[in-house]
Order: sequence, then structure tokens, then C-alpha cells
Amino acid sequence: MIISLRTAKALLEAAEKQAMTMGISEDIAIVDEGGNLIAFHRMDNAKIAGIDIAVNKAWTSVALQVPTANLVSAALPGGPSFGINTTNQGRIVILGGGIPLIYNKRIVGGIGVSGATSAQDIEVANAAVRFFESMTITPANTNN
Amino acid sequence: MIISLRTAKALLEAAEKQAMTMGISEDIAIVDEGGNLIAFHRMDNAKIAGIDIAVNKAWTSVALQVPTANLVSAALPGGPSFGINTTNQGRIVILGGGIPLIYNKRIVGGIGVSGATSAQDIEVANAAVRFFESMTITPANTNN
Amino acid sequence: MIISLRTAKALLEAAEKQAMTMGISEDIAIVDEGGNLIAFHRMDNAKIAGIDIAVNKAWTSVALQVPTANLVSAALPGGPSFGINTTNQGRIVILGGGIPLIYNKRIVGGIGVSGATSAQDIEVANAAVRFFESMTITPANTNN
Amino acid sequence: MIISLRTAKALLEAAEKQAMTMGISEDIAIVDEGGNLIAFHRMDNAKIAGIDIAVNKAWTSVALQVPTANLVSAALPGGPSFGINTTNQGRIVILGGGIPLIYNKRIVGGIGVSGATSAQDIEVANAAVRFFESMTITPANTNN
Repeated sequence: MIISLRTAKALLEAAEKQAMTMGISEDIAIVDEGGNLIAFHRMDNAKIAGIDIAVNKAWTSVALQVPTANLVSAALPGGPSFGINTTNQGRIVILGGGIPLIYNKRIVGGIGVSGATSAQDIEVANAAVRFFESMTITPANTNN
Repeated sequence: MIISLRTAKALLEAAEKQAMTMGISEDIAIVDEGGNLIAFHRMDNAKIAGIDIAVNKAWTSVALQVPTANLVSAALPGGPSFGINTTNQGRIVILGGGIPLIYNKRIVGGIGVSGATSAQDIEVANAAVRFFESMTITPANTNN
Repeated sequence: MIISLRTAKALLEAAEKQAMTMGISEDIAIVDEGGNLIAFHRMDNAKIAGIDIAVNKAWTSVALQVPTANLVSAALPGGPSFGINTTNQGRIVILGGGIPLIYNKRIVGGIGVSGATSAQDIEVANAAVRFFESMTITPANTNN
Repeated sequence: MIISLRTAKALLEAAEKQAMTMGISEDIAIVDEGGNLIAFHRMDNAKIAGIDIAVNKAWTSVALQVPTANLVSAALPGGPSFGINTTNQGRIVILGGGIPLIYNKRIVGGIGVSGATSAQDIEVANAAVRFFESMTITPANTNN
């Protein structure tokens, strides 16, 4: 499955609705399976540092094939991934809020959210992930 | 006037409609008056090199306060701006398709379009600029 | 079609054979449809500057959806793409030798060759492209 | 001894076989004594973040003349090399999996492996190192 711009917009909308419900402003990015940006929205008053962080959280989730939240403790001093965030010209983000988008057990893209606490960023990203899963669960898919 | 995400989405939609009418796929970015990205959309099958180019065309139009098309001849060898595209860590783009968004004679943001010929990119950007002007011309505005 | 490492190795081998026949040493890179590196080989005594150039020729062919040879005159002063090689953090290469790999009319990857003259680099890259086409022309494919 | 492309391919093959035995997908790089890339292979489904990491693990092993695993604790806060991974434009990697290739007590190149746990990356790299040692131990060699 290739994520179309139409799908990416729907994912952004799901994330933005969740953020509005929570009363927060987020930077939100969707990348494809190659880690390349499809769409980005900065909600009104969201942090400008979050532009880079959201895009790179999405990239990291695809490039390392994990939710970025998994890196939080792994990248601590003494953890198994300590130092990973200085590789790849600083594109690796070790803050929660980047989540791979999975279709038929394959990573087909990623979402990255930045602007609030990591817990809130994850909650906003998850709203989009749930929406993606609802879009892509088809009878054929559930048989895989 | 501060460009809201809602306005940025409307500008993107105007540009995308124009591109679809022309049968082309574009990367399109909207930045604010600080040159910071508000929204970006990559149309299906648009070039991935255009991600960086669209964002930086928009940035350039705000940062140099001109349509990027004005730089095309100015940046030629012997021209008054020769070499400008290697300043600012390569963020200055000297290809047409970046246009400032003006409200009350002040630059309040910019649009950048990349993916087709410069003439086509400019045409797509102009569709959004015209839409922006139609949004912002109000009786109150004309009194300023 | 996703280019496997096995396919990438076969493409490199085809290119290396061609280079050996011509008595030259080349740097050769294969990227996937997202522009990400699959495989790279530097032939004995090939130029070390060619490492970056080969990888980025392959990337450029995918990211701009053209053979890099098309950019040679387009990027000249006064040409329609003058200045494009300072975008994308310098990853755009405007020297011949980067060619998209096409399957069913879709770009599925790219090859980049650097180390000799552009004409020679193109000849080496074309040997791999021809090999790719011979691999991928199937009855199903020819009906598309 | 100068590592030829032929030798580099044999080292990659030894590493890939080991990874396949372990059921993992790895990014694997071989650099020469100048730290310059000779060959790189990304196994099917290996992480794209590992491209940069594998190449730079190999580079680090040559550039700092140690296995990168030695840096893991040295680069901890309070350790003798704390901060080293932000030097050299981020090319220093402080994760295990980069190992110098030694011939006649001289570093003649390096291998870098990324994609799985550090312990697994090291195991895969060691398979190539052992193969290199078996290639280079000759009667003439033992007399040096």
C-alpha cells in the first residue's frame, strides 16, 4: 500500500481533532515508506522547533522500524542505544510521538507529532494510527 | 494578519486544484512571516527532491522579500545576485515558484511550489496567491 | 517491484563488467524508490570523490525522476534548472551517470556511476539498466 | 595490504551468511585504511537508518583505531570519551558493530554492521573479521 496525499490528509485531520479535543497545538508530519515527507501541518501557535522534530520523529519511526517512544529509555546512558541520536546527521529523534504506519505487517510510512508533552504527542499520534488501521482493515487484510 | 493553518490548507487546496487541472503533480509549501513552515503537501507521484525545493522556495520568498522568479536572472554569472544560492546553508532557491503572500503591503508569508517546469510551478503558486488575495480583500482592508 | 539486494548485486555486476571491458574503475550505487542506498561498490583505484557522487547521482535520478544527463544543459546559466544543484543540501548531481530504474512505467530505484568521463559513466550505468530491463521483461509486464 | 573490491565482497558475503543464519537483516559496510567506503550492502528489509550507522561504524573503527564496542562505556557521562560522538560532524558512532581489519598489526580497513542489537551486529561483524583473518594468514605473513 502506498499512502496517498488524500490518506495523509485524513491522518492529519484525525490527529488535529485529537489535539483540539485535548486543547493543545501540535506539529504533525506524515512520511512514506522511504521516510520522505508526504504532508506536514503546524497547528496555530504550535512550536516552530516542532517542525523539525515532527518530521524527524516520523522519519525515525520508519528508518529504525520502531515507535520513537521505544528509544526513550534505550538511548539513556548505559542503555543499548546510547548515542544513536547523534547518528544520521541528527535526524534520529529519541522522544515519543513517532509511530510507524503498518499495513499487512509491513511499514508503509510513519507519523510524527511534536509540540506538547511526549505522552500527549503519543496520544495524538495514536489517534491517527487508529484511524489508519480502521481505513486499512479489510476482509482481505484480516486474512493475512 | 497571521496565516492560520486553516488559511494555509485553503491555499494548498487552491494550488492543488490548479495543478490537477494542468495534469501535473507538485510539492507545495506555505511558510509564515518568519519563514517557518506552516503546511506542506506532496501530491501523489510528485518528486521527492521537490520537498526541500518547495519549502525553500517559500522560505526564500519571505527571506529575500521577492518572488524567487526574480532571482533567476539576477543570480546568473555577472548578475547582481550571483552566488546568493550558496548562502544560508543552501536554503536560497533561485528557481521560479516561490511567491510572498502580501497583506496590507506587508509580507505575511510565502508559498513555494516545485515539481514541474518553473513556468508551471509559478502558475500553480499564483493560483494560491490569487485565492489569498480574494480572501483578504475586505472593505476594512481597502481602507488601510 | 521492490529491488532486492540480490537484484542490486546483479546490477552492480553488470556495471562492473562493462567498466572492466572499457578499462576503467568506477564507483557504482543502487538506490531504492525512496532514494535510500541498497548497495555500493567502489572498484579498485576508483576515485574516492566518486563515492558521494555515485550515491547522489542515483538519488538524484529517483528524486528528480530523470537521468542526471538531462540536467547537464538544463542547469547551465540561463537554463531552466540553473541553481538546482545547490538545493537539497547539495545532493542533486548535474553530471551524467544517474539513471532511474523503471518497472511497469514506475520508477522503482536508480543507479549512479561516477569515476570516469560522463559519457563513460553513462555507458556503464546503461549496461546495468539494460540488464535490469532484461530481468524485468516478463509476459505480464509486456501487457502493461 | 590494500583491501580490493573482491575482498570486500567476500567479507560482505561472510557477514550476510552469518546474519541469515541468525535470521536478521543487516546494513553492512567495508571501508579502506583511509576510512573511505569500498562497499555497502543493505539486506532486504534492513533499517534505512542503518545505512549511515553502518558506514560510520566502519569509519569510526578506522578513524579511532578501535572497535566501536570499546566506545560504549568510554562515551558514557563521566567516561574518558564522553562527547566524542558529537565530533567529526557526527560521524563517530559509539554503538558496537564497527571493527578494524588488521593485517600485519596494521589497520588496513574496517567493517561496520547495523540493524539488529549491538550484540548481534558485533557477531555479524566478527564473522567477516574471522574470514578476513583466514584469508590473510599465509606462511609469508607469519614470517613478518
